[in-house]
Amino acid sequence: MSTATVESINTEILALQNRIKELKVSKQDASAEVNSMKALKEQLKTLTKDQEANGGGSGSNFTLKTPKGTIDHKPEAALLRKKIFSTLEGIFLKHDASTIDTPVFELKEILAGKYGEDSKLIYDLSDQGGELCSLRYDLTVPFARYVAMNGITSMKRYHIGKVYRRDQPVMTKGRMREFYQCDIDIAGTCDPMVYDSEILKILCEALTALDIGQYTVKLNHRKILDGIFQLAGVPADKTRSISSAVDKLDKLPWADVKKEMTVEKGLDEQVADKIGQYVGLKGPGMEVLEKLKLDGDLMAIPLAKQGISDMEILFRYLKVYKVLDKMSFDMSLARGLDYYTGIIYEAIHESSAPPSKSVNPPVPANASASSSKPVKTSKNAIINEDGIDESTVGVGSIAAGGRYDNLVGMFAESAGKKMNEQVPCVGVSVGVERVYSIMESRRKATQEKVRGKETEVFVLGLGGVELEKRMEVATLLWDNGIKTSFSPKVNPKPPAQWKQADDDSIPYVLILAPKEYAEGKVRVKAQLGKDQVGAEDNKGEEVPLDNVVAYLKEKLGRS
Amino acid sequence: MSTATVESINTEILALQNRIKELKVSKQDASAEVNSMKALKEQLKTLTKDQEANGGGSGSNFTLKTPKGTIDHKPEAALLRKKIFSTLEGIFLKHDASTIDTPVFELKEILAGKYGEDSKLIYDLSDQGGELCSLRYDLTVPFARYVAMNGITSMKRYHIGKVYRRDQPVMTKGRMREFYQCDIDIAGTCDPMVYDSEILKILCEALTALDIGQYTVKLNHRKILDGIFQLAGVPADKTRSISSAVDKLDKLPWADVKKEMTVEKGLDEQVADKIGQYVGLKGPGMEVLEKLKLDGDLMAIPLAKQGISDMEILFRYLKVYKVLDKMSFDMSLARGLDYYTGIIYEAIHESSAPPSKSVNPPVPANASASSSKPVKTSKNAIINEDGIDESTVGVGSIAAGGRYDNLVGMFAESAGKKMNEQVPCVGVSVGVERVYSIMESRRKATQEKVRGKETEVFVLGLGGVELEKRMEVATLLWDNGIKTSFSPKVNPKPPAQWKQADDDSIPYVLILAPKEYAEGKVRVKAQLGKDQVGAEDNKGEEVPLDNVVAYLKEKLGRS
Repeated sequence: MSTATVESINTEILALQNRIKELKVSKQDASAEVNSMKALKEQLKTLTKDQEANGGGSGSNFTLKTPKGTIDHKPEAALLRKKIFSTLEGIFLKHDASTIDTPVFELKEILAGKYGEDSKLIYDLSDQGGELCSLRYDLTVPFARYVAMNGITSMKRYHIGKVYRRDQPVMTKGRMREFYQCDIDIAGTCDPMVYDSEILKILCEALTALDIGQYTVKLNHRKILDGIFQLAGVPADKTRSISSAVDKLDKLPWADVKKEMTVEKGLDEQVADKIGQYVGLKGPGMEVLEKLKLDGDLMAIPLAKQGISDMEILFRYLKVYKVLDKMSFDMSLARGLDYYTGIIYEAIHESSAPPSKSVNPPVPANASASSSKPVKTSKNAIINEDGIDESTVGVGSIAAGGRYDNLVGMFAESAGKKMNEQVPCVGVSVGVERVYSIMESRRKATQEKVRGKETEVFVLGLGGVELEKRMEVATLLWDNGIKTSFSPKVNPKPPAQWKQADDDSIPYVLILAPKEYAEGKVRVKAQLGKDQVGAEDNKGEEVPLDNVVAYLKEKLGRS
Repeated sequence: MSTATVESINTEILALQNRIKELKVSKQDASAEVNSMKALKEQLKTLTKDQEANGGGSGSNFTLKTPKGTIDHKPEAALLRKKIFSTLEGIFLKHDASTIDTPVFELKEILAGKYGEDSKLIYDLSDQGGELCSLRYDLTVPFARYVAMNGITSMKRYHIGKVYRRDQPVMTKGRMREFYQCDIDIAGTCDPMVYDSEILKILCEALTALDIGQYTVKLNHRKILDGIFQLAGVPADKTRSISSAVDKLDKLPWADVKKEMTVEKGLDEQVADKIGQYVGLKGPGMEVLEKLKLDGDLMAIPLAKQGISDMEILFRYLKVYKVLDKMSFDMSLARGLDYYTGIIYEAIHESSAPPSKSVNPPVPANASASSSKPVKTSKNAIINEDGIDESTVGVGSIAAGGRYDNLVGMFAESAGKKMNEQVPCVGVSVGVERVYSIMESRRKATQEKVRGKETEVFVLGLGGVELEKRMEVATLLWDNGIKTSFSPKVNPKPPAQWKQADDDSIPYVLILAPKEYAEGKVRVKAQLGKDQVGAEDNKGEEVPLDNVVAYLKEKLGRS
């Protein structure tokens, strides 16, 4: 019985039970069926035992939930996300971009070695005898693979899709294991900073259009950072690890970062101090630029000079784009990922910082098990399944990106493809879930009513108008693009029908009453809230059936 | 050096090489940098060796491809799919549905035991120390889980998302391992066949709107099938396996199916013959219904009588919905999945049947290795990596579904939830990739030009108008919602700019020429094809810059 399953056997048992009942009611012999049912129940017992032996089957008890770090999106949530995607997509299309889609999993070797320390957060697919695959960690590496694979030299592409990271989730702040990213990247050569400035223009247009409140874009340049490290005397083989320490300055005080550099990563204290003289520098682009240009030592380092020159061009373009005021030129921005080669940026929202004044990272609840002081949890604490108080965690950055000139070439090389030139790229990734988190809080504050559906007209039947008449009228409306519903009962009572229209907040009710319908007329009533002016007198309008489509389209604001 | 990766080391080497070059050019000592670079190259060698020992890293040679059975969607393809989704979504919304989204993977036990024999096609995630998960196989089981999990008793939901099956792919016919499904399901009680008929109405509206040509919806009812089996004398424990044999009648002749029933599945020949008397029956709903109603033996089986009565009600509603003519009442339709309990249906397109006249399944190329006759491959053969000739495979059904009353209740039970009543469901799943396949062939036939982007205006600079002026004008257009691009060069030559506008099929070019621009004027030229009337005389129109937005909006058909 290899094709039988618990579900199918249960269905057969149910069918047999019905049959036995019918036979008995009509006083026929049901013994053959009773025996068949006994045989099936035995079969079920064996199958369930087997499945439990193999670690659970549909017969055993388990919790109905989504996997850790993932959620279902209920209708209102799904609609809000759709609005976010649609806003972003509109802006990307304005800027000459096309979209692509890539598979949710890639060959393991495509993702391997691209994410540094974060590689441990990659989800692998099980080895089931075929190619080894992993779920995509971002949309950038798949893009670079796509560009190299198709020999593309120039492309503006956007991609809205889910990515997967086996991180510690902080669900209330939009940090999940499965989450959407909205990326736009431009591949191809351009004159200095032209594409870089357009990406920043797009980012600002997007964050403004999403109406999430105040935001800042922190900017820096890898060459300036690398130049500072050179000036300070950081050994070349420590550049990345020192970069990674600098990147923590948005969460840790300088003292802690310096300690990490010297104690953990073996940097000379003088070198660390020299770095410290620069990484505290941040402010409006032109101001910080002027300070750097006056620094003779730094300007003598060719890398740094290049970076500073790039920034000067960039700010000129950002001024034309009217977004310079959103920028903060911030020497402490280093960014975790290794593949950036030029400008880097991160957008933060007023809510990004953790609510508590302390700049220390949140203390896990299990810390109280050790000899350190017990953690006081406030009454607003939200302790998650890992013991972290989510109320102490900030939303984090809401978008980030930079220039990455070597990634495509590296793919092409690994594949043994001869590439005449690099395909330089620059892009930004909008963290949709973080944006969603922010919009949700703002929405709750305004107590805006949100519908999960868009239904416009409810067809209600009074006293004896058959279901088929309601279906006919609904078909007329559907044929004319009007979103319509009606009760699924043959002969529903009016109160239940009014309730359905109210529960779904359907704005118009089209009433079919026997006498009026026989005369070719219907009544259309606009659903006003109980407390609205005129609600009591609202009897609706009588409309000829022949004209009801035009009537409704006008009410709905359509031609 | 746990934070170093091949990519980051390569980037550092590149930076060092630049630095060494600069130092040597300015005649400075570069020996420290040269030593650092040697150290990094050693580090690279070791790291690459480690990665290769662990089965490949970014340093080793591999093929740039997507995993077997998956594809990237290039811009034109992505846009066509978007059009399909958007058409379907519009119809679902017209019918009072809301959308949800669920995670791409579920807990393993949620999917276990739901798909019968097809369970072997499920992709598992690797055991990485947490919950065991699998990629979703369809959107129906996640929906049932969602309904049970949230205690929902009534819901109309649609869901457009990717699902995963480790099947043998036939890429040219839209059979892939990762593919989109568009599902609409209605959960909740209704009077007989009300929701069932609405789902079929939605299906027909959708297939008509997608404009794919002729299609038929095959219908049947599980209770009628089970009734026939009872009448014929099929033992209850063989119901499902005989069902599965009957389901093959769309691909195999009756002789082969009968052989499977009797020889492989141990059915008495008489019983098989009795089944054979019914399963050949197919035709317009009312006709077949009348035949069945006249069959006293069958009508005496209560299950069959219920099913026939359901169909009678259904056809009445389908007539009101004006879709009865699309239906074929087909006794040979059995459907593979076990969870169907009532009406079942499958939509087929004129292209569904395999092109060859033979009703035998395609012969794999490796069959020639055995003693049977060698397979002749035609000159139109498309042999895929599994050796199957894809040109002999039909597209298969383009949509399918049915009523499944026990699935939600079964989830609730497994979770130990008390449910007062079942939540019956009925739904349909549209096979987007199959539809896409068909639309693509039709499109190729008409040689319709397809753009991958929507850009409307190209800002072109003549003789010395700086980049910043082009950026300024572009910003004006972007601020007014006009999709605009321009060359990324500071001082591009006109031919290269015209080429960019042409390559991207951008309909309007806005020309900035120094003299005109100084006078506050620009020129707008509509891009006509070279062969179009008036192309040679097309010099465009001079427009004041102050008015160019209104001018363009009018040309683009917007207010």
